[in-house]
Amino acid sequence: MSITDSHSRLDDDPAFALHQGGKLHVEPSVEVTDHEGLALAYTPGVARVCTAIADTPELVNTYTWKSSVVAVVTDGSAVLGLGDIGPEASLPVMEGKALLFRQFAGVDAVPIALSCDGVDDIVETVARMAPSFGGINLEDIAAPRCFEIERRLRERLDIPVFHDDQHGTAIVTVAALRNAARLTGRTLADLRVVVSGAGAAGVAVTKMLVDGGIGDIAVADSKGVIYSGREGLTPVKEELAAISNRAGLQGSIETALEGADVFIGLSAGEVPESVVATMAPQATVFAMANPNPEVHPEVARRHASVVATGRSDFPNQINNVLAFPGVFRGALDARATDVTEAMKLAAADAIADLVGDDLSADYIIPSTFDERVVPAVAAAVAEQARSDGVARS
Amino acid sequence: MSITDSHSRLDDDPAFALHQGGKLHVEPSVEVTDHEGLALAYTPGVARVCTAIADTPELVNTYTWKSSVVAVVTDGSAVLGLGDIGPEASLPVMEGKALLFRQFAGVDAVPIALSCDGVDDIVETVARMAPSFGGINLEDIAAPRCFEIERRLRERLDIPVFHDDQHGTAIVTVAALRNAARLTGRTLADLRVVVSGAGAAGVAVTKMLVDGGIGDIAVADSKGVIYSGREGLTPVKEELAAISNRAGLQGSIETALEGADVFIGLSAGEVPESVVATMAPQATVFAMANPNPEVHPEVARRHASVVATGRSDFPNQINNVLAFPGVFRGALDARATDVTEAMKLAAADAIADLVGDDLSADYIIPSTFDERVVPAVAAAVAEQARSDGVARS
Repeated sequence: MSITDSHSRLDDDPAFALHQGGKLHVEPSVEVTDHEGLALAYTPGVARVCTAIADTPELVNTYTWKSSVVAVVTDGSAVLGLGDIGPEASLPVMEGKALLFRQFAGVDAVPIALSCDGVDDIVETVARMAPSFGGINLEDIAAPRCFEIERRLRERLDIPVFHDDQHGTAIVTVAALRNAARLTGRTLADLRVVVSGAGAAGVAVTKMLVDGGIGDIAVADSKGVIYSGREGLTPVKEELAAISNRAGLQGSIETALEGADVFIGLSAGEVPESVVATMAPQATVFAMANPNPEVHPEVARRHASVVATGRSDFPNQINNVLAFPGVFRGALDARATDVTEAMKLAAADAIADLVGDDLSADYIIPSTFDERVVPAVAAAVAEQARSDGVARS
Repeated sequence: MSITDSHSRLDDDPAFALHQGGKLHVEPSVEVTDHEGLALAYTPGVARVCTAIADTPELVNTYTWKSSVVAVVTDGSAVLGLGDIGPEASLPVMEGKALLFRQFAGVDAVPIALSCDGVDDIVETVARMAPSFGGINLEDIAAPRCFEIERRLRERLDIPVFHDDQHGTAIVTVAALRNAARLTGRTLADLRVVVSGAGAAGVAVTKMLVDGGIGDIAVADSKGVIYSGREGLTPVKEELAAISNRAGLQGSIETALEGADVFIGLSAGEVPESVVATMAPQATVFAMANPNPEVHPEVARRHASVVATGRSDFPNQINNVLAFPGVFRGALDARATDVTEAMKLAAADAIADLVGDDLSADYIIPSTFDERVVPAVAAAVAEQARSDGVARS
């Protein structure tokens, strides 16, 4: 395809018109119009500010943008559902993320798409650039490398490191599931859950639900339900097997779904209506694959009491935008050194609580554009950071 | 010093008030206010843009901000005159640079202060993040590592890499010297120059003046004039000795200045009035050390026809702001793969030419705030990039 062909094809798509020239600018917050201004914002005045920070390192958070700027870091290895398309092709997503950070939470964010081979390269590169940033949002990095990258960076850095594909998804899913449980008169402890997909999101959702006190939870990958002792498990899936599937289920996801209370779809694998029909009464179905849910929500609704998807054109959109802007806003406000498990649960509770008395089968989670979400999440996250002893302000 | 003491001390200094919260923000150029907007700027619409870039890599320059964003990269090892104060303390300078990039030339720039050990680390780190940027401005990196870092990154990357402390200073110095020569009825070929300082700026100014056809030029470091065979020369200074000092001068800078036409001060070493008095008639003195020029300009003026400094409160301020915004604007506009020597000379000519018929002893270089400078430099640089075959648009 030549560029000319491509351009004429792209001209008809409003997404391309919107992306022309990119979606971000860096704007000064002070204007320099004369020598006096220049002498304050740049040399020689800036030297006094540099000297003060060299003497008292904490001042970097007062006199630079460090404490309000997040790097949105990817290696382009698992971009949306497109797979390993490389760093350049991932940039529109990273810019979109930065746009949402700023618009939803006033967080400055910079796309950093890396050309890296493997875990060590990414960890080293991010660690070296960390002095410039107040937080690191990892994005669209393939499993299982995403787990080790995040673990090592969290250990090494004293700023929040958060892989949104894991924890953003987990936070919003847990929030939605709390309200689904409430709607059907139950708690998380009452529920048996089946998760489809053992990638970044599947692993994080499972861990967070276990932390949150779920009754039982089983995870299925393309080979069926994951259980301790299944042949050829990766270390991550072994760890998953150890904390999940107390019932010791084996076999296909269809078998696991029989009598289950909750289905959480985080892969593209279809689930037939006949299988949804075998779930327990008052079942919950989160069919979050995008753009094609694992089961059409209207079909699922014939058998389930509560249905959610990842799409905005059906009720109950489970969208990370509800979590990551407020999580970082809160973590930055508290100058947190980490995002703890309790901070993530606090974020989920804050999102769930906003639904309040309006709770219904079609409203278990606030809208993406509900302006109460970010302040509530940020406050809960900052407060929890202080309780957890990871806050510096 | 406690933070409280420090704060109260800093309250009296307007530089600190101006730096509160930092000097930059990342702002979206599109606003997302509803689900339709979100579906174009983010998923699912963004996936089509990503796919198009994966298919046709050049489209990254059309549909992301890559081709308009420059990384301002430092390791904090030679910040202003403050030395190796580290990455965090260097951030106010990098933010200032980014502010000037945007305000003067509409170039988006992002401060990237790296915690790195040595040349290999910096080269690898910058090369890995290069997919996210249209250009790399190296800043405040100590000599001699700055030379190798720039050389290796220029070889490795297909985007402009420009160490401003070298080439920005050199471009503006050459521009000023062209006009000083014109004012005194001479050309560069007629001049014998003495440079004080063999750091980043001294090396680059010398190389550029040699490229520009200077009569003769000698460089002095703290041990006196550099000549081939001087004991203990670093490789960079050996190279300098090979291209400079055709007269074979040895000894102190004072000796070299006797009968010299031009003094270019790029170190903090003082030059007494008695030494300036020994220079040739119609001498030129560029005393560019900041904030204290090597010789006070009013003192120098007693003996020299033309005097310039790095300060805005005396005539003829030699300020990199005249060069780097336009150089990057032009290089980005042409989508240049490199900044060639000819592009730097074209930038110097463009700056010098703006003075035109207004040339006088107190006006050899345009003002920092002369709005003609950036467009003229950008046009000259882009045109030269096309002549040099390094332009892609």
